[in-house]
Amino acid sequence: MPKVRFEPGETVVEVPSGTLIAEAARQAGVALALPCGGQGRCGRCRVIVQQGQVHRRSTQRLLAEEIQAGWALACQTLIEQDTLIAIPPQERIGRPATGAQRQAATTALPFPYDPQTDQPIRQYLLRLPPPSLEDQTDDWSRLQRELRRQYGLGALTASVPVLRQFSQRLREANWHVRAVIEWHAWDRPEGPARLLDLLPADEPGRLWGAAVDIGTTTVTVYLVDLQTGQVAAQAADYNAQIARGEDIISRIIYAGKPGGLEELQALVRETIHRLLAQACQAARANPGQVYKMTVVGNTTMMHLFLGVPPEAIRLTPYIPTVNHWPSVPARQLGLAIHPEATVDCLPGVASYMGADITAGVLSSGLADTEQLTLFLDIGTNGEMVLGNREWMISCAASAGPAFEGAGVQSGMRAADGAIEEVWISSQTFEPSWQVIGQQRPRGICGSGLICLLAEMFRTGLIDKAGNFNFQTPTDRLRRGRHSGEYVVAWATETAHGEDIVITQVDIENLLRAKAAIYAGFTVLARQVGVRLEEVGQVLIGGGFGQSMDVEKAIQIGLLPDLPWERFQFLGNTAVRGAYYGLLSRQMRRRLTEIAQKITYWELSADNSFFEEFNAALFLPHTDQSLFPSVADIAAKQEPGTF
Amino acid sequence: MPKVRFEPGETVVEVPSGTLIAEAARQAGVALALPCGGQGRCGRCRVIVQQGQVHRRSTQRLLAEEIQAGWALACQTLIEQDTLIAIPPQERIGRPATGAQRQAATTALPFPYDPQTDQPIRQYLLRLPPPSLEDQTDDWSRLQRELRRQYGLGALTASVPVLRQFSQRLREANWHVRAVIEWHAWDRPEGPARLLDLLPADEPGRLWGAAVDIGTTTVTVYLVDLQTGQVAAQAADYNAQIARGEDIISRIIYAGKPGGLEELQALVRETIHRLLAQACQAARANPGQVYKMTVVGNTTMMHLFLGVPPEAIRLTPYIPTVNHWPSVPARQLGLAIHPEATVDCLPGVASYMGADITAGVLSSGLADTEQLTLFLDIGTNGEMVLGNREWMISCAASAGPAFEGAGVQSGMRAADGAIEEVWISSQTFEPSWQVIGQQRPRGICGSGLICLLAEMFRTGLIDKAGNFNFQTPTDRLRRGRHSGEYVVAWATETAHGEDIVITQVDIENLLRAKAAIYAGFTVLARQVGVRLEEVGQVLIGGGFGQSMDVEKAIQIGLLPDLPWERFQFLGNTAVRGAYYGLLSRQMRRRLTEIAQKITYWELSADNSFFEEFNAALFLPHTDQSLFPSVADIAAKQEPGTF
Repeated sequence: MPKVRFEPGETVVEVPSGTLIAEAARQAGVALALPCGGQGRCGRCRVIVQQGQVHRRSTQRLLAEEIQAGWALACQTLIEQDTLIAIPPQERIGRPATGAQRQAATTALPFPYDPQTDQPIRQYLLRLPPPSLEDQTDDWSRLQRELRRQYGLGALTASVPVLRQFSQRLREANWHVRAVIEWHAWDRPEGPARLLDLLPADEPGRLWGAAVDIGTTTVTVYLVDLQTGQVAAQAADYNAQIARGEDIISRIIYAGKPGGLEELQALVRETIHRLLAQACQAARANPGQVYKMTVVGNTTMMHLFLGVPPEAIRLTPYIPTVNHWPSVPARQLGLAIHPEATVDCLPGVASYMGADITAGVLSSGLADTEQLTLFLDIGTNGEMVLGNREWMISCAASAGPAFEGAGVQSGMRAADGAIEEVWISSQTFEPSWQVIGQQRPRGICGSGLICLLAEMFRTGLIDKAGNFNFQTPTDRLRRGRHSGEYVVAWATETAHGEDIVITQVDIENLLRAKAAIYAGFTVLARQVGVRLEEVGQVLIGGGFGQSMDVEKAIQIGLLPDLPWERFQFLGNTAVRGAYYGLLSRQMRRRLTEIAQKITYWELSADNSFFEEFNAALFLPHTDQSLFPSVADIAAKQEPGTF
Repeated sequence: MPKVRFEPGETVVEVPSGTLIAEAARQAGVALALPCGGQGRCGRCRVIVQQGQVHRRSTQRLLAEEIQAGWALACQTLIEQDTLIAIPPQERIGRPATGAQRQAATTALPFPYDPQTDQPIRQYLLRLPPPSLEDQTDDWSRLQRELRRQYGLGALTASVPVLRQFSQRLREANWHVRAVIEWHAWDRPEGPARLLDLLPADEPGRLWGAAVDIGTTTVTVYLVDLQTGQVAAQAADYNAQIARGEDIISRIIYAGKPGGLEELQALVRETIHRLLAQACQAARANPGQVYKMTVVGNTTMMHLFLGVPPEAIRLTPYIPTVNHWPSVPARQLGLAIHPEATVDCLPGVASYMGADITAGVLSSGLADTEQLTLFLDIGTNGEMVLGNREWMISCAASAGPAFEGAGVQSGMRAADGAIEEVWISSQTFEPSWQVIGQQRPRGICGSGLICLLAEMFRTGLIDKAGNFNFQTPTDRLRRGRHSGEYVVAWATETAHGEDIVITQVDIENLLRAKAAIYAGFTVLARQVGVRLEEVGQVLIGGGFGQSMDVEKAIQIGLLPDLPWERFQFLGNTAVRGAYYGLLSRQMRRRLTEIAQKITYWELSADNSFFEEFNAALFLPHTDQSLFPSVADIAAKQEPGTF
């Protein structure tokens, strides 16, 4: 049987002659996306046949010179002999095929973890000599005395609720106990250690921690074994606050209503509780033994989580109450973890540059690299950081929620039923799409909108300015109630029995969103006197980034026109940074240093931003020289050529 | 007009010839007690006429040799010419006549107070530059930045509730604020300072503190101006817990019932609230501006105040949960002072040697003197400390509550209607008494019982063993239902229409109580190898001590037979120690040192205590050589001589 080897990596499989490359890849465990289900329509499974003979059943979406260079569609190409197949970077990176692989990819620690030195939460087994008339030392001093004798610990402190149970617990455990202690908090190196819990020595128990990312849309929880440093389980779900406003601004306004702040706080707390319960069940953990939590989120989410009014965040000059939060006992927040657990809200930079970005900068490695790096988190606000380990400058482009599916007629969040990828035939102008959850579509999410925009542009359905070309021979393009629109899915194909369309107004929204982001990093680069071509790597964080198509994003001018291998999709960098901060005091200090080191550039006070923004309102850009790779497409769709 | 000079002091008054010494003293502002109202019956207003001629209208209760030595009853003796009158120590010390003098006496500070160095609660006036697009520093960092710039302060911390109001307060105050800050707690010298409150700069406000002594019976509050160090007002009242048990043991038992602990905690909290409200009203202070509180009390009271189960305190080997408490935010205790106020529960020594004694040792000066000193706090447990600035040994004699009026048929607390002093005529065996609140008597309190016992012994109504002499020619001595009894007040004279009596059983209880105390300090002295005669001063603290008659207490063998001038009545030494600890970090450290330095001697584990106890069950003692001053009385009342 022919042997097929996949690169990069050393994976080799033997398959019968006539096997599809896609099937061989599956058997080899190589992640390869087949968005159109292997029909040869989307062209997303392109691979390069570097050695060996293959048979191409179809070459749809491949140019002649590409075929000459060895490109083939994995879903349409048969193995004939020993073959060496290269998987291009875009398909490889950050697109693991299965949940298990994804988990492994996101939770591997990039630093050695020694709980005895890094972790402030520790436990000590102790056998105390019982008191007697000859030794009437009080219970609390007795514990401290033995901790000093047996482990060399210094003075302890404890809260009154812990002391209330203290004597009874000592006696019930017959003076043989496990003391859970938080060594000095990371930011108070001289403070006393603190007793969190006292348990019978023979009762099994683990030390758990939780890292939480509170996104405006999605909340993610990692449940972490503090002794091994491993992520034991993770869970993610919608932020229940969505019912009270989809974007940050509407939440801030809601928080200003009577009882609104308390309601929003309760909603996100309930979401965290639900996710923790889920993760704890999966890991057979007890939420009451979660002794520490780190939390990240954008600055507004942090304020709402702590019940601090976020009002001033939305009003010029956009001032948060706090960027560097003091740590808070879980009891004070009513969190259903151990009541003595410290909740450590990680530091942010500014009103629109939150702890999620600080954490992302840490976990992405930006803060440790010498290479000039652009870190992007494309959500409502499109936060971005440009820099390296020496310096970092950041801004938040008010991209608006279009890429999150809001403000777009058929837009929706990246949830089941969302069209996440679209391809349009340049012959028939018929679309095909990939739907999350393999079901009938209900709408289009951000990555789908990027695809759609790029495909409409590539096929000439719209011009550089985003205007529809009504000359196009297709009944999908029509004049809608308010503006022109293109029908992505007919009512008969959709879940809700209505056409899924993209309108001229939607396109303008999307152009503004992508222009804001492109203008953002352009301004940042100019601020520090570097050219975008010098950017050695573009690190894309956030759930959105994980499913974005780099090629398409470059085609519409959302991402800079750099070689694909410079882009890396890192998934949820925010929760990962929270996870690092949970484990290691060193990492926790780095987070504060990073937050202090990042310069925040307020775009609303920068006139050049508006110039750049206007220049970027075209596909891919007014200045085509910035997008050489898109030159051939762009040349065809000059405005007014229709 | 004749001039009358009183000693000690330089007070001189001119009065018409024929003026009573008592009236001259009143005009001179010299404190002189007239317990029987000036009838010449009680002999308590004895003074020494050192120079000059007087006329004695009555010499009742004076011996011939006393008259010869110049003694006279101030209420029965008329001035005739220039006179020099000496007030004996017992009447002088600790018996200030008026409330105002008493307050002045107890609140004078024995150390210089500099709030800028001693007091951790401080306030800072600040004008913050408002934020702008050019300076988007978050509010919390902005405050810290200006505190650093203008006052050189380091990093701050704050609770979430403070941060919740923070931005709004800054803006409402138009960035001109008064920040109330607690510098590092006394026990965490390296910890960060903490923001307690933020107020408009133009709003007047003071920094208040409160020192609280939680007695089993009485709670005392000092309201203190932290900027001047002065006591602005004080208040005292019954501990509302009394309704749930009069002594410590019954409270501990009550605390063990479902909901009992929470109820006791709520009761003492309400008492403190009432007293604070009272003191704040008197000083025109706002309880919400009380930023710090120190609390003392016996160990059980401290546990109940904090809601910590006191169960193990009453069970051998008598172990408290905590002697050295961590400080607690007022919010956690539901105290109606500023919610961020630190409540500092001062350290105790053992289950029956509480923070009230530590504080008493500090404020009495025992811990600073070279002189061998005995500190006594005679309540239910008769705590005592023997030592000096080099060493201290202590014990608690289970005196029982007899001296607090409990366990005695007609006993009551030192409250309105209590007979507090008694004198018995050695001719008629008729008693006369002084009642608290100048009303009909309802019972007899501790000091009255001491007097009564001494008077019955002096007049031969009882013998050395405390047995009634039924030969005595008086109808007041009778055989009651269970034992013999002496009628102190007939039903027709009392408030409740029943005879007030002292029974044989009562006398036995009182003998056991006084024997326990005498045995206690005898054992302590032997432990450290000193003789009681070497004790240079006896310092008596507690409300009880303030009204005790030293002469009588020596006659019954409760106090050692030392010259009167060695005894000092110091009033509430506990609240005063709490007051010192409230003001000064230096004093606060001393309190911890004292608590650590005091050796606690467990009498229940000491056989010699029982021997001493049995030997002390007689009046004044089995070994009469220990009480030379009482020899003449004792010689007459040998047991069995009746």
